[in-house]
Amino acid sequence: MYYDLTVVQFTKMLKNLSAILEKAEAFAALKKVETSVLLNSRLSVDQFNLIRQVQISTDIAKLAVARLTGKDAPKHEDNETTLAELEARIQSVIEYLATFSEADFADTATRSVSQPRWEGKYLTGHEFAMQWAVPNVYFHVTTAYAILRHLGMDVGKKDYLGEMPYKS
Amino acid sequence: MYYDLTVVQFTKMLKNLSAILEKAEAFAALKKVETSVLLNSRLSVDQFNLIRQVQISTDIAKLAVARLTGKDAPKHEDNETTLAELEARIQSVIEYLATFSEADFADTATRSVSQPRWEGKYLTGHEFAMQWAVPNVYFHVTTAYAILRHLGMDVGKKDYLGEMPYKS
Repeated sequence: MYYDLTVVQFTKMLKNLSAILEKAEAFAALKKVETSVLLNSRLSVDQFNLIRQVQISTDIAKLAVARLTGKDAPKHEDNETTLAELEARIQSVIEYLATFSEADFADTATRSVSQPRWEGKYLTGHEFAMQWAVPNVYFHVTTAYAILRHLGMDVGKKDYLGEMPYKS
Repeated sequence: MYYDLTVVQFTKMLKNLSAILEKAEAFAALKKVETSVLLNSRLSVDQFNLIRQVQISTDIAKLAVARLTGKDAPKHEDNETTLAELEARIQSVIEYLATFSEADFADTATRSVSQPRWEGKYLTGHEFAMQWAVPNVYFHVTTAYAILRHLGMDVGKKDYLGEMPYKS
């Protein structure tokens, strides 16, 4: 279950984010502005811009899965300035997530999970997945989406949710 | 697990949303505007305003849990126009969620879940929870938060995530 909730679903959301960013290139062209204008936009003067939202989305996805399974996550230098570099970062995290399997999560529920800023405090893996990792990834992907939506880009909730495996 | 992922976590997020909305009253007073100015704000001309974001957050939470367990959800008339009415709506859904227990989710994984707009198509309960309900609730709570953040209200990600049960 933790595998589906994190690896499978984070992979899907990062693919959706990547597809949304792809649309940003055409939108910038339509508006006759540099793509960097979009990438440096933010919803509020003291909230992170689109570049940081993408960086944080991918960081939380990779670090959450690493911490829930006791593995190491790949490092990123946080030096992306272009759409292509952000797409590459997303792709690298999708590839990292693909190295996991359901079996890696056997001890997740009861594992102690901490983070550098938590000064030694910890959550159980279950609490970390439910209350921290999952809400956080959706927060930053939604915020990235919202920045582009706010700028007038033609994107809808379906782009955020992605395809559903409907049966009939 | 579905119980924790939906009932427990949706309850937490609705409480967080309620606390964020409470701050909106003081923010409106600070800015010397009617609260209705905030409630009718939106991030984009063709995106729902704050009132609708709250209505949809609560609708998805109540309907998702109802559909995952084969129960009926309470109806809301979607006629809220004030902060107090929105807070009451959130409270009513929190009370509805409190009527569920882990046992109600025994058949969730394999249950067929459909919605009126899906024209007879369906997802398994597992797919519905993971890919539809959970991302959707976080989307609308984040968007409600983002509208107020965009207007300059002093609110941070901690307000969105809520308290963590840290251990030391």
